[in-house]
Amino acid sequence: MSEVYAVRRARLRDRCAASGTAAALVSRPANVRYLAGGSPPGAVLLVGAGDDVLVCPRPPTGDPAEGRLDEQLRQVVLPPSGGDPAVAAVDFAAKAGADALAVEEHHLTVTRHRAMSSVAPRTRLSDLGHAIEQERIVKDEDEITCLRIAAEITDQALGELLESILVGRTERHLALELERRLVDHGADGPAFPTSVATGPNAGRGGHRPSDRRVEEGDFLSVCLGANYRGYRCEIGRTFVIGTAPADWQIELYDLVFAAQRAARQTLAPGAAYRDVDRAARQILDAAGYSDAVAPFLGHGVGLEIEEDPQLAPSAMGKLDACVPVTVEPGVHLPGRGGVRIDDTLVVRQEADGGPELLTITTKELLAL
Amino acid sequence: MSEVYAVRRARLRDRCAASGTAAALVSRPANVRYLAGGSPPGAVLLVGAGDDVLVCPRPPTGDPAEGRLDEQLRQVVLPPSGGDPAVAAVDFAAKAGADALAVEEHHLTVTRHRAMSSVAPRTRLSDLGHAIEQERIVKDEDEITCLRIAAEITDQALGELLESILVGRTERHLALELERRLVDHGADGPAFPTSVATGPNAGRGGHRPSDRRVEEGDFLSVCLGANYRGYRCEIGRTFVIGTAPADWQIELYDLVFAAQRAARQTLAPGAAYRDVDRAARQILDAAGYSDAVAPFLGHGVGLEIEEDPQLAPSAMGKLDACVPVTVEPGVHLPGRGGVRIDDTLVVRQEADGGPELLTITTKELLAL
Repeated sequence: MSEVYAVRRARLRDRCAASGTAAALVSRPANVRYLAGGSPPGAVLLVGAGDDVLVCPRPPTGDPAEGRLDEQLRQVVLPPSGGDPAVAAVDFAAKAGADALAVEEHHLTVTRHRAMSSVAPRTRLSDLGHAIEQERIVKDEDEITCLRIAAEITDQALGELLESILVGRTERHLALELERRLVDHGADGPAFPTSVATGPNAGRGGHRPSDRRVEEGDFLSVCLGANYRGYRCEIGRTFVIGTAPADWQIELYDLVFAAQRAARQTLAPGAAYRDVDRAARQILDAAGYSDAVAPFLGHGVGLEIEEDPQLAPSAMGKLDACVPVTVEPGVHLPGRGGVRIDDTLVVRQEADGGPELLTITTKELLAL
Repeated sequence: MSEVYAVRRARLRDRCAASGTAAALVSRPANVRYLAGGSPPGAVLLVGAGDDVLVCPRPPTGDPAEGRLDEQLRQVVLPPSGGDPAVAAVDFAAKAGADALAVEEHHLTVTRHRAMSSVAPRTRLSDLGHAIEQERIVKDEDEITCLRIAAEITDQALGELLESILVGRTERHLALELERRLVDHGADGPAFPTSVATGPNAGRGGHRPSDRRVEEGDFLSVCLGANYRGYRCEIGRTFVIGTAPADWQIELYDLVFAAQRAARQTLAPGAAYRDVDRAARQILDAAGYSDAVAPFLGHGVGLEIEEDPQLAPSAMGKLDACVPVTVEPGVHLPGRGGVRIDDTLVVRQEADGGPELLTITTKELLAL
């Protein structure tokens, strides 16, 4: 597995060399993990100035949730009052003779950047931009395997919840139970805070669980995902509580389901990001729900739960094969609730069977 | 309660006026919450350029975990593709005639800061520094009440755990159960990720729960805290599993307990931060554990779990009354485990009874 990280770092060094800045300092944790196998809290990675080196503020604890560090990679652990690892790394780079260093200006604060500039005034700091985030968009099969396992864990946790009694329990308790079940099935933790939304809250994107209890006749929407070896997936489902859904619930559900299916069907190498969004959005717009729809209807997933690409009306770019994305349209009607249906899929060539659905829990409207 | 926020903002305006920069833009979430009563995700607060205004990327959801926004405060919600609220706020400030704006350079990334500079080239951006963090160090009685309730919730959650069977359960499960109990007792959530450490892991600061199971003869150390209305406390305790602790366990426990007590006894208005640290550290050093001790032995708590002041050997400054801090020395012996004892206390005048202990769970060495 070590080789993967060495190859990724070599690609970054090549990219830096091509742009005239031989060395780069990576500080964004997901980017550090992508290139080093792990990201101990606060660690930064110096690439291209002498040996690549991971500068850590403390000895790594070996905690598996921090990833498995590439053993080939040199590590430097700062002494207890060693200060900011990014400042120390700039100093290393300067001493290794780097006259320029590309840094992640979208991650570093102004204060840190200034401290880094002052420690080595003759090393010019330039902007690496989102170079590593761009590299992370297309996944290799090992990464997709981690996402597939994350999705299996997520489906299991959700499936167990559906077998239990729901009426009378609070959103908060259901969310905590889902997170416990994720861990029971082997997740390193939840991929993001689990959302459980009932009644008027249902269908609201990013709803934080409250003390509202599940009632007969409610819509119940859940959104959860497992983190497995750093890789994060997402599933969202909406159910009806009670023996039979009301007509408006069936209509709204069918509409969102049709929108979600339309967007899933567009997923193919070469499809424009915005066309995936549009496929779902135009169905919801045509039904008169333009104002009730979220500003984007899907996004990449991987070492972070929201990665590039964003599937939104103004997004520029096209999908590639082996890009995992969510497709998650929803409609929320204030005071009444709503529906959200969310899957994680991997874009695949049609010859390979088309989009690979990772989150396989049924999307029928279940009455629980 | 609204008045409190208006008074805090007035104090910030006065401070800005005194330094020649009439307006400030606050982006760090805990600082926004301190001044606005709440901090919807991504919201920034503009103070001193016309009416104070909270610029939100989305309509606030009313989620109580985001706080209760000051109703007197003007709110502007950006349209769905409205971009970065901080950039929009700089634009507002410029249009309100501000020629200078103090911003939080320790929170803003270089990329955001640059976007803010370009939107209003005639508005000079200066550094607000940690001005609001400094204001937040001394708490009012309403804030201390929130911390006191947070501590009560925490003591309850821990107390219930101690009544249950522990042997054979994993660190992860115990941590999840503690977090569920915090929420059961009214917490908005955990104040920070709950740490449960058994056997060789015990006593390690910030240990992340693993799949190790509790065994007879183990040290078991836990560190947890509730978040109540945004205010976060912390408790750490170490127990022995089984009928009777071994001699080395009793000795180590008594030593850490003596160190913790010594540091607690120094807590008084006017005491130097470093002297609190030293009181505990010299006891551990004298017993030969210099290398096994953390670089700081306590810190402030409030809207964030680690706030100023830091109680560390190199810290400059003195305690005031009404400053809540943790006192949390520990010793970890690689391969054997260790002890950590952690309380949250409020510094009080001796005439007011001396330091107020918020986390009242017993510090006797319990054999469970």
